[in-house]
Amino acid sequence: MHESTRPAPTTTATLLISCNDREGIDAAVTGFLAEHGGNIVHLDQHVDFEENVFFMRIEWELAGFGLPRDEIPAAFRAVAERFAMNWRLHFSDYTPRMAIFVSRLPHCVFDLLARVESGEWKVEVPLVIGNHPDPAGLVERFGVEFHHMPVSPENRAEQERRQLELLRSRKVDFIVLARYMQILGEEMVAAYPNRIINIHHSFLPAFPGARPYHSAYARGVKIIGATSHYVTVELDAGPIIAQDIMHVSHKDTVDDLIRKGRDLEKMVLARAVWSHLQNKILVYHNKTVVFD
Amino acid sequence: MHESTRPAPTTTATLLISCNDREGIDAAVTGFLAEHGGNIVHLDQHVDFEENVFFMRIEWELAGFGLPRDEIPAAFRAVAERFAMNWRLHFSDYTPRMAIFVSRLPHCVFDLLARVESGEWKVEVPLVIGNHPDPAGLVERFGVEFHHMPVSPENRAEQERRQLELLRSRKVDFIVLARYMQILGEEMVAAYPNRIINIHHSFLPAFPGARPYHSAYARGVKIIGATSHYVTVELDAGPIIAQDIMHVSHKDTVDDLIRKGRDLEKMVLARAVWSHLQNKILVYHNKTVVFD
Amino acid sequence: MHESTRPAPTTTATLLISCNDREGIDAAVTGFLAEHGGNIVHLDQHVDFEENVFFMRIEWELAGFGLPRDEIPAAFRAVAERFAMNWRLHFSDYTPRMAIFVSRLPHCVFDLLARVESGEWKVEVPLVIGNHPDPAGLVERFGVEFHHMPVSPENRAEQERRQLELLRSRKVDFIVLARYMQILGEEMVAAYPNRIINIHHSFLPAFPGARPYHSAYARGVKIIGATSHYVTVELDAGPIIAQDIMHVSHKDTVDDLIRKGRDLEKMVLARAVWSHLQNKILVYHNKTVVFD
Amino acid sequence: MHESTRPAPTTTATLLISCNDREGIDAAVTGFLAEHGGNIVHLDQHVDFEENVFFMRIEWELAGFGLPRDEIPAAFRAVAERFAMNWRLHFSDYTPRMAIFVSRLPHCVFDLLARVESGEWKVEVPLVIGNHPDPAGLVERFGVEFHHMPVSPENRAEQERRQLELLRSRKVDFIVLARYMQILGEEMVAAYPNRIINIHHSFLPAFPGARPYHSAYARGVKIIGATSHYVTVELDAGPIIAQDIMHVSHKDTVDDLIRKGRDLEKMVLARAVWSHLQNKILVYHNKTVVFD
Repeated sequence: MHESTRPAPTTTATLLISCNDREGIDAAVTGFLAEHGGNIVHLDQHVDFEENVFFMRIEWELAGFGLPRDEIPAAFRAVAERFAMNWRLHFSDYTPRMAIFVSRLPHCVFDLLARVESGEWKVEVPLVIGNHPDPAGLVERFGVEFHHMPVSPENRAEQERRQLELLRSRKVDFIVLARYMQILGEEMVAAYPNRIINIHHSFLPAFPGARPYHSAYARGVKIIGATSHYVTVELDAGPIIAQDIMHVSHKDTVDDLIRKGRDLEKMVLARAVWSHLQNKILVYHNKTVVFD
Repeated sequence: MHESTRPAPTTTATLLISCNDREGIDAAVTGFLAEHGGNIVHLDQHVDFEENVFFMRIEWELAGFGLPRDEIPAAFRAVAERFAMNWRLHFSDYTPRMAIFVSRLPHCVFDLLARVESGEWKVEVPLVIGNHPDPAGLVERFGVEFHHMPVSPENRAEQERRQLELLRSRKVDFIVLARYMQILGEEMVAAYPNRIINIHHSFLPAFPGARPYHSAYARGVKIIGATSHYVTVELDAGPIIAQDIMHVSHKDTVDDLIRKGRDLEKMVLARAVWSHLQNKILVYHNKTVVFD
Repeated sequence: MHESTRPAPTTTATLLISCNDREGIDAAVTGFLAEHGGNIVHLDQHVDFEENVFFMRIEWELAGFGLPRDEIPAAFRAVAERFAMNWRLHFSDYTPRMAIFVSRLPHCVFDLLARVESGEWKVEVPLVIGNHPDPAGLVERFGVEFHHMPVSPENRAEQERRQLELLRSRKVDFIVLARYMQILGEEMVAAYPNRIINIHHSFLPAFPGARPYHSAYARGVKIIGATSHYVTVELDAGPIIAQDIMHVSHKDTVDDLIRKGRDLEKMVLARAVWSHLQNKILVYHNKTVVFD
Repeated sequence: MHESTRPAPTTTATLLISCNDREGIDAAVTGFLAEHGGNIVHLDQHVDFEENVFFMRIEWELAGFGLPRDEIPAAFRAVAERFAMNWRLHFSDYTPRMAIFVSRLPHCVFDLLARVESGEWKVEVPLVIGNHPDPAGLVERFGVEFHHMPVSPENRAEQERRQLELLRSRKVDFIVLARYMQILGEEMVAAYPNRIINIHHSFLPAFPGARPYHSAYARGVKIIGATSHYVTVELDAGPIIAQDIMHVSHKDTVDDLIRKGRDLEKMVLARAVWSHLQNKILVYHNKTVVFD
């Protein structure tokens, strides 16, 4: 479906690293790769000088690299321990598995599934879970299984347990809340730390909680926004991944805000999921480093 | 599917007017409505002082209006003739019929059909015409008929004649070219004047014609754009309806521009179609007045 | 200084109107102008259907108008009373008088004075009042008198009284707080209702009060904003006139946010002052209608 | 003037490097710094895979670095030669010297001088050269010398020779054309390669040359733009540093475009100068890498 005729990139490995900042980290990591003949294709690093934290994302070609992929972790451990690093290793030929949670509004789930189907994103969607039955037809039309799991105060704990089982049985790597209007329980959040992506329909921290477009209208703001963030136990307070806004005016009714906001929500959520899929996000102190 | 609980608006009539500017037009039009008890819900007007042209869009409730809808044209004619107006009359309970032309890239047609299906837009799509077979499955999944009509230099005239017949038989009001990579013939353009909406993947007048992302990359621009315009016989030179841009950087390859541009194309095209559906566009001198 | 060779526009009168919405207002107002041969150059109107309030801004040429300007109010009164209108009348050849309040940061006052001096805005600045002495030299360089009036909890009431006297003696029409870091007293606010324009360095309602860039940094937002609003007695809660944002990233320190924010503050404040100078703002229910 | 209380950063050295891409460059450069105890504060790199060119900007603290600053070039040469690097070395305690060229419009020169005076930028402005006398008073008010050097087809070569002498005598490092409406000669361009920054008032490559706002108006575009680029001998065709746009509508006259464009020009030019001052720009193949 692509307009490009560029050859597919070769398989790469990506290291995501954070640790206390001190001299020599760059040299140690790039030296490690050079030693094994690794050809670096991307290197991003960042230092938070207030907190003295170092962050790095380094991606190199596996072709020609002197270590087989399953020996990389053990070999890198010496470097990692020297700097007390937190680190993760990803391979570009792995296809991550994404679950989508949805309520009644279909625009975000539609947009996500269209990106998957058209090959824009390299991701599998083994299932969609909805607390309303409405999106079933739409989801199944994409050949994706839909689980209708209504949630009430009484059955919430039980439903979440069932959801967790489902997610595990489908080997889900991360979850996207596509305008899912339920608060997740602590167990669910703990099971997918920094791996549940929500879209909130305001420019947080303004207008958290329910009905932000109505609040925005009442306050008479001249912009509306959307915020994508990782879910934590505190509502709408997790680490922000992406935000954007649209200009509005006195002409816009609440319905106009809702209509315009839908496009904003789709775009901001898609941008956050894209960054997550590219393994470009590091989280610390309830904030994100998002390499671009 | 809407979040709103607002009651549906009542049926309205909308007049779109343009004429040479002179004193008293506003008073004549609003006086005409007042005389018949018309409650104005929107009034937009604009004067191009360089060209001395007056434009107005006026929308009023039919409930309580003193004239039955089929008598409005005759009654308004006196006002219109006094100022030598060009004018059109629309009723909000008419559902326009939109045909979509597509080539291989599915993102725009997907986005359009999703908006129609979710009820975001009040429009019927009786058919999609494609010069490639690829989008057939996607389109039919929305319950819309797909006509595969490949076009070559040899059969172009014949195919356009068949297309025009199809469009007429389906009572199509306007056409959207959703990344349709063929140039339309004069007969087609003449059959739908200011009623064929194209999306071009650059900020026109920069990078008209083929492969604008490649040209943008080669020039090293720091923004990419998309332009929606009415189709005229001159390629990419019709009246512009909507434009927007995204910031890019040296990090973006041609493939990145293509990927980012897809979202831009979807958004800008949707904005233009929305304005068209709202009867908010007036065309003159190869330019548009787009009321918001 | 202008690049344009367009002839200066003729003198115009502008009516700003708000009232309960009902049928016939447009016809009554445009009929009044037509009756006296008024050539309308701009007409904007808006209806808030939730609150049932009608707003209009109508501007017409005085040349050829059948009423001398001092007879317009009495003549219009009949129309106004029929619809219980709130209304104001402005003439385009009047040059409004703007006072500027400033603390230590010079970028906003610099930008405002540069616009006045270069002829971009038609406004007089009879004085600048500062609670710090720092901007004195800069202000006087523009030939504008600077009053250093330090404010402390003890002398606040007394200083405001002196400020009000100064403002009256200089016939000030409206006040711009150009990053003035003091809260105004009730008497001052009451003396200039909807005529004191503030710039707050966040996208309100997020981050009201002191040090919003520090709060934005701590929260890890991906956008920073600025908000221009009319001052009311409640801090940072007045009717919003203009807002805009800039994208930021993990790379931006608090100092970067402050640096980038300065440009945003200048632009948003200038946009709000421009709208005010054009008599394009109507206030109701702590919100604004800003015609463009 | 700053709101920040952060301690001033220590003096740093910055290397800007480009060369053909191959394995081991990162390791060689970071290894060189590690060897001498250099604490890296910023590292940005980029690879253009189409052209196989590697780019790096690396900044480290001089405090604690094992080499005195005048020995760095000789020591680094071994690394540089191994990879056939183009490279430059900057020290953060050097204050660059910027000349400004201006014609009649004052907004850009005003904005630049205000940023210098308020301490926002660390740069000296030894002189401003104008081909019109108008900005003299404004410039001298900032304590900067102004040279009125009118240019005509007859005296152009002679004036440029005098300008070059002036620039050399004032030890100017780079030149900013602040809406200077003259084309520079080849000798001038050759004397300051990639060190003359222009602001053009359109989104290039659209509307190069004279009167772009008039052309934009005539075409009926819905955005206007500004482009800052390094000057080459071909008019408006040099490497683009920064671009931005504003949305406009049918309501905007040419005068409105000019007025709105002024703010855009100021902002885009300032952003380009800032990147230049931070030594964040690398030029190749008539394009730029602009690290942020």
